[in-house]
Amino acid sequence: MMTQTESSNYIGVDLSGAALRAALVTNEGRVVERREAALSAGDIATQVTRVAADLRGEASRVFALGVGVPGLVNPETGRVIISSDLPAIVRSDLQTEIAQASGLNVTMENDANAAAYGEYIAGAGHGSRHMFYVTIGNGIGGALILDSKLWLGDSGFAGEFGHITIDPEGIECTCGNVGCLETVASAPNIVRRTHERLMRDSTSSLSRLGLNKNFTASDIAHAANDGDDFALMMLERTGRYIGTAIAAVINLLNIERIVLGGRIMEAGDLILNPIIREAGRRSFQPCFEATQIVAAALGPDAVPIGAAMLARDMSGAAH
Amino acid sequence: MMTQTESSNYIGVDLSGAALRAALVTNEGRVVERREAALSAGDIATQVTRVAADLRGEASRVFALGVGVPGLVNPETGRVIISSDLPAIVRSDLQTEIAQASGLNVTMENDANAAAYGEYIAGAGHGSRHMFYVTIGNGIGGALILDSKLWLGDSGFAGEFGHITIDPEGIECTCGNVGCLETVASAPNIVRRTHERLMRDSTSSLSRLGLNKNFTASDIAHAANDGDDFALMMLERTGRYIGTAIAAVINLLNIERIVLGGRIMEAGDLILNPIIREAGRRSFQPCFEATQIVAAALGPDAVPIGAAMLARDMSGAAH
Repeated sequence: MMTQTESSNYIGVDLSGAALRAALVTNEGRVVERREAALSAGDIATQVTRVAADLRGEASRVFALGVGVPGLVNPETGRVIISSDLPAIVRSDLQTEIAQASGLNVTMENDANAAAYGEYIAGAGHGSRHMFYVTIGNGIGGALILDSKLWLGDSGFAGEFGHITIDPEGIECTCGNVGCLETVASAPNIVRRTHERLMRDSTSSLSRLGLNKNFTASDIAHAANDGDDFALMMLERTGRYIGTAIAAVINLLNIERIVLGGRIMEAGDLILNPIIREAGRRSFQPCFEATQIVAAALGPDAVPIGAAMLARDMSGAAH
Repeated sequence: MMTQTESSNYIGVDLSGAALRAALVTNEGRVVERREAALSAGDIATQVTRVAADLRGEASRVFALGVGVPGLVNPETGRVIISSDLPAIVRSDLQTEIAQASGLNVTMENDANAAAYGEYIAGAGHGSRHMFYVTIGNGIGGALILDSKLWLGDSGFAGEFGHITIDPEGIECTCGNVGCLETVASAPNIVRRTHERLMRDSTSSLSRLGLNKNFTASDIAHAANDGDDFALMMLERTGRYIGTAIAAVINLLNIERIVLGGRIMEAGDLILNPIIREAGRRSFQPCFEATQIVAAALGPDAVPIGAAMLARDMSGAAH
């Protein structure tokens, strides 16, 4: 699969899952080589440097390396300051360690920001100038591209879409607020709501859903794709929650394009259409009419591509 | 009061009320001369041109004129495309008419955008780089300054803060949605909620509030300033609604400063403090800690100053 090419210039790394995913990415945002390795408990900088060295062997020249991390990054220091998923990366200065070990310019970015930039450069955001990206998985993240640049906010924390209040009287969120979008629309909360509904409503049943007790949000998406009414209804309601929060973004920003990614989008139009309908109902109409709402296109490549392209555009590396 | 000065260079006009308010504004955003006239049903361009001519007599040279209008403005044509408060300005090409009649470069802008820019240049937003402005009066408007520039959005409609959904099961809004912030927190809706509460709750009464049946939101603010518990409680609840929507802005944009203006801010800290408390409860904490939430400083001068400064910065006029 290797394509030795002059333009294979950047390495993007995704630390947001249990695995370390990395890619060699061209100047245009195309992946020419992928690597995936389990992320062990040991030194993360060493693991990243090892994969990077492997990928560098496939390219004539690599200009810079970008890393997408599941946490908040201080844009001035490049240090990760909060990460509930990967606390080890807060204690170390990953950017400096990888830069020293690899000799490359290194850029660190929040994973949702990296995915947004990837979709913007080479995916479903391509061709737009203003884009909002949402990823719906275990958590819900967001990121903004404004005037063709990643909008980081005053201290680098913009895009906390999952913590927009959807139900002022809702259940408690890990963030301390109640009724955040994440409390109803993240993958684990879709499962929770489905369990609650099944217990309450005897006309629905696990067997109808074709699921066992340990079903996941992906199972619900697959059941809906197979035409299961109950799963469809759960996705429809989830879409309404997400659409309500999307409408806030549309009203505030009059944004050109909204790209929806993450595991929940496996359900395709069965979740996208309810989101678009509810966003339309709850948006100021001239703003809504100016917005395209589409599914993400890059899947798991979004973070590596975006991290590589951020390294291209933000590290000052030659290209 | 006239100060003939070399730097009295711009004219700002506010068409957002029943009156036409205009000011001669220095290059630094300081008002040196004001005019106010009833806005008659006749030709608006003529009325603006007449006030502008009067103000020009007070200045050595005027470089450009800006107009703040209660409606949405197409940023490419300068035409007003929607205005529920002043429908006449949609039918005419006000920008061209005023420019031809006055010989000045003319910039048209939505009144909330103009007020935001005024506060940003010369008021409570001064010194910030990223600012969100909210005005709460008969309606609720918002506007964004990002990287020191007015953020218009893809088609010029950004900042529709009043139509963010606060209560998914709430009452119908003029925009067609239900439960918009405006349906509970605009001046007429604060009055409506107060009436409803008074009818429902026999321990509260109009006499305790010291109000007659035709009280306004300003009367409620004044009663609260005088220590009336019931009025205080109404402001506290209103502040919570506004704070919930403010939290969405903080979470999405990680914005440096939020400036709150409009008639409701007559209540001062009695409304500002509940807004800040609720925004704090409902924001992602690292974002909230980066945000200052303050009251607007320019009062009714905000729109004329901002319109004048937009004319300075957007018309290409020499300065």
